[in-house]
Parts: sequence; structure tokens; C-alpha cells
Amino acid sequence: MPDTKANILLLGCGAVGTLAAVTLEKSERATITAVLRSNFTAVGQKGFTIDSIDHGSLTGWRPSHIERSVQDAMTHGPFQFIVIALKNLPDIYSIPDLIAPAITRFTTIVLIQNGIGIEQPFVDSFPDSTILSGVSMIGARELSSGVIRHDNPDILHLGPIYNTTTTRKTEDELAASFASLYRAGGASCLLTNDITCMRWKKLVWNASFNSVCAITGLDSGAIMDAGGVETIIRPVMDEIVTIATASGCTLPDGIQQRTIDSMPREINFRPSMLVDVDRGNPIEVEAIVGNPLRIAQELGCEVPLLRMIYECLKLIQWRIVRDKSLAVS
Amino acid sequence: MPDTKANILLLGCGAVGTLAAVTLEKSERATITAVLRSNFTAVGQKGFTIDSIDHGSLTGWRPSHIERSVQDAMTHGPFQFIVIALKNLPDIYSIPDLIAPAITRFTTIVLIQNGIGIEQPFVDSFPDSTILSGVSMIGARELSSGVIRHDNPDILHLGPIYNTTTTRKTEDELAASFASLYRAGGASCLLTNDITCMRWKKLVWNASFNSVCAITGLDSGAIMDAGGVETIIRPVMDEIVTIATASGCTLPDGIQQRTIDSMPREINFRPSMLVDVDRGNPIEVEAIVGNPLRIAQELGCEVPLLRMIYECLKLIQWRIVRDKSLAVS
Repeated sequence: MPDTKANILLLGCGAVGTLAAVTLEKSERATITAVLRSNFTAVGQKGFTIDSIDHGSLTGWRPSHIERSVQDAMTHGPFQFIVIALKNLPDIYSIPDLIAPAITRFTTIVLIQNGIGIEQPFVDSFPDSTILSGVSMIGARELSSGVIRHDNPDILHLGPIYNTTTTRKTEDELAASFASLYRAGGASCLLTNDITCMRWKKLVWNASFNSVCAITGLDSGAIMDAGGVETIIRPVMDEIVTIATASGCTLPDGIQQRTIDSMPREINFRPSMLVDVDRGNPIEVEAIVGNPLRIAQELGCEVPLLRMIYECLKLIQWRIVRDKSLAVS
Repeated sequence: MPDTKANILLLGCGAVGTLAAVTLEKSERATITAVLRSNFTAVGQKGFTIDSIDHGSLTGWRPSHIERSVQDAMTHGPFQFIVIALKNLPDIYSIPDLIAPAITRFTTIVLIQNGIGIEQPFVDSFPDSTILSGVSMIGARELSSGVIRHDNPDILHLGPIYNTTTTRKTEDELAASFASLYRAGGASCLLTNDITCMRWKKLVWNASFNSVCAITGLDSGAIMDAGGVETIIRPVMDEIVTIATASGCTLPDGIQQRTIDSMPREINFRPSMLVDVDRGNPIEVEAIVGNPLRIAQELGCEVPLLRMIYECLKLIQWRIVRDKSLAVS
């Protein structure tokens, strides 16, 4: 291991990003410069208040540096890793544009975000960079600005998106290096060479429950009580499995039922897009529904339910964006 | 014409029902006993305040009798006509059960309600009654309890549902008789012998715009601005036309575009189901979407978009009913 600490830029300090920051700092082998948006003022004044199953109770916690923008963060660079835990909103802003100033030939990009097909914009924009793609299985949420509740352990699945300009060996080493930091900080990081398949697996849940909750205003338990599992959830899951299979990812048999069973009826879980709709914040419709739909089209899969869900969510997104701009103007 | 006035029981004094009551009383050939629900107290105290394109400004207007229930209304019977302008919510309450006490062998039932296939429960429950089915093209809404704004003329399309126990001649005469009262009161009533086709025509609008507005929280103009006409509205209209055609009703060529053109972009119209969702009131999902879907199934039509819309609206209905019962308990 290197003697000096890894210098890491981290974007997005919601629940997932903040807990990644805590883990990486706790390794004592990394220095985090975090770029905050909505919670910059709150965290600047009082730090984070974190109640974490992995890290215990933290009050007034801050990463090494906090900044308002990538430009401001540059004074702490250059960075070996840029960890992106921002909401994935390609229809609202371009994350590649955002991080471009901080990218060097030696920067590795680590995506900890929802959805499928989310790596391509980074591959296209930064052909010399290694892209590590991460799927987080954490259970955590931001209760209010800078206040984070972490109920289920942080398990990060991580794997390189192998590109043509770097050797596989280098990419695997960089993945191992990041995973080692993560583990040294007290969380799990499981390396895989097929992260896309892991993304499809998580999408079985996200494209169905997350979408339908956002459209109907119901939490996961209420969807079950209302009989929505058989009428919508499972049929949408079937479509996701169809696309995944067509794209070459064989999901485990019965993943639909296993995914349903993973949500006990008594848990009234409010998925991220439902929370966003309730708060009037943009939803991750392109990463979670738009991208799988486009992959389905390329592969010639018929997915009428997913298409309908997508078109409804896009109209809801349009309303959210309009209302936000009205609130600002 | 008879010398005595027609004795009419009218259920549901929202905008459509109240204006029907005004028209029928204004004919001076009918006595209306209206059963009010949510606005009984307001109307009992101050009467209706009506601003009508057909009838001018009316303050403190009341029909001959107002009552809280069909049972209470019975003292004013027997009734030749029972006019039903209630919201059509078969998943919430049974209108046949509600009116059963007031039905005699000589009662004619007049339905002024949205949707398709809504007559069958009345045919089943009251085989001796003539059923007149009405499609209202009125533009009117209740601004607050008992306060009604009527912007577009009342045009009622009316036709009998021919059954086996009454002669067509009698049914046609009863339709003509009711239409004559309506016209004498200063509104339009157009007789047709294919009211079902008229229902499909109106459904091209209702199943698409009304549904999608309710799901997305957007008004008709916003749906257009957001590009929703091509992504959802027209595809859903196509499915309705497919079902109508399969059921033997030939809609005019290009009815989809004509229906879209009938909603100028600058009109930000909030359809009934969107208003209901906003107010936390049950929506007419079965009449507007459930029934056409069931007809599609019987006829073997593939209508995946309509099915998805139905399942989403049913979950939204479940939430509305749950929240209402929580508010009451």
C-alpha cells in the first residue's frame, strides 16, 4: 500500500455518499473532499449527525474538506478517485460536465448510483479513465439536512467497466485498491467482474416497486395490501428479467419472488422516487426506467408496461421540474 | 302532454345534476325532489348559487324538495323518473341498492353519468324499468359547496337501453317525453338510438386525458406542453378506438385527432378524476377505465396501456379510500 493517503473527491452527500465518506475517512488511508449541495450550510455549521449500524453514533462529523462546487474543491486536488454518489439525473444535469475539470489521466471514477447503463456517458467523456461501477445495498436515508439514519449494513458491489485504453490488470488493481480502502473503513465491498448483472438484479426491485410507489403515492407495504404485487409489480419485474436475459445477463431463477419476499409486508418502505415526488425533487427516471427501456428497444424486447411507466414518470418529472422553476422564479 | 307535472327524483347535485334539476324545474312540467349528499347543509341554508350560460345568474335557487336520502325522499313519491347524476363508483357503493326503494313498475331510470357499460347493473336489478342512458356534453363545475359555474351549454345525448320486457315503442316514447321536458327547460336533449356509440366517443377523451391527468397531476394543457399527447394520450385513444370498433361501434375516422383538437392548448382543463385526486375523493376508475378493459378482454382485444392505466388508478383509488377512512376514524 502507498505511504500517502489516497486523495478522493466525493460528489453527493446524501445518505449513501456521506456513509461512503465516513467509511473511507475511517480507513485512515484516504482524505475526502466532499462537494455538498443542498446540505452545505447545515453541514458547514453543525457537521453531520449520523446514527449508523456500521459506525455507531457520530455528531458533528465532517470529512477532511467540504466545498460547494468541483471548482472550489480543485484546491485540494489532484484526486486519484472521484466517487460519485449524486442522484443520477441525466435529463437535468450532466455529471461528466460537472467533474471534467477534476479529471486527469490518472483519475479513477467510482460510480455509486442506481440504474442500468449509467457508465456509458463516463466512458464516452473520459476514455483514459478507469470506471469502477458500484451498486450499493445499503439501507440508509437522510432524515433532514445533514441528519442521517443508517439501518442496514453498507454492502458495496464493485466492478470495473473494462474499456479499451487501460489493461484489465490495471483496472482490476484499481478496483481492488478502492475495495481495500472501503473494507479498512469497516464496510463491505464485494468485487465482481460482472457488475452489470448486479445492476439488473437491483433493477428488478427499483423499476417495479420504486416506480409504482412514485406513481401511486403508496409505500411498499401498501402496494402489497392493495393487491398491486400481482397486478403491476410482478408483470413489470417479468419485463425487466426479459430485458436482462436478452442482454446476456442470466438472473437467478425466481428472482421476482425472491425480490418480493425481501420486502416483508410489515415494512412500509418509501422508495427513493416516492420520497422525491413527495418532496418535489426530480426523480431518477432515466437511470431506473429510461435506460432499461432503451436497451429493450435495441434488443427488440416488447415491454409495454415499462414503456407506460416510463411515459407516466416522465410527465411527473416534467411537473416536478416546472413546479421547482416556478418556486425559484 | 299530461296535465299534471312529472314527478322526478334526482340523485346527485354536483354541477351536472344541479343544472339538470334547474332545467327540468324551469320547464314548469316537472317537480324535482333532489337527494343531496355533501352539499345538503350548504344548500339547505342558502340554496344554490348558479352562474349559468343557459339559465343566467341564480341565487338561493332550490328544487321543489331537497332531502338527505332516498328514504326521506319517498314521502314525495311515487316518481315517474329517477335521474341519476351521482358519481359512478360501483367499487364504493351500489346505486341500484340505493334507489331500489323508490322503484315501481312504472319508474323510468335516467342515467346522466360518465363511462361505458354502466347500464347493465340497472338492467339486471330492474328488468321492468325502462333505462334511458344519457351522455352529458356540459361544461360545468361546482366551485364550492352549492356554488356552480356553468360555462358551456348543456347538451344531453339520450337514448334507451332497449330491454326485453318493454316494447321499443314505449321506451322511445319515454325517451321523447323526458327529452321534451329537458328542451322545455331551455337546454338541448338529442335523442339517439345508439347511445353506446356516443359513450365510446366521449370515452376517447375520458379514458386518455382524464386518466393520465389523474395519474400525473397535470392538467390538459400541461400534458400537451410536456409532450404527453404523442407518448401516452394518442396511444391510449387508439386502444379505445380498437375496443369500440371490435364491439361494433364505428367511430368517425380521425376521432383521436379531433378529440385532441377539441382541447385547445391554452385551456388548462382539470378533468374530473384529477380534481377528485386533488381533493382526496374517489375516482370513476371502473366506469371510465375498468369497464372498457373488461369489454376488451371479452372481445380479445390487446390493450396493454389501458390495463396499466387501470392498475395504477386502482392503486390510487385504494390510497384515496384508505386516507378517507383514516380521516373519518
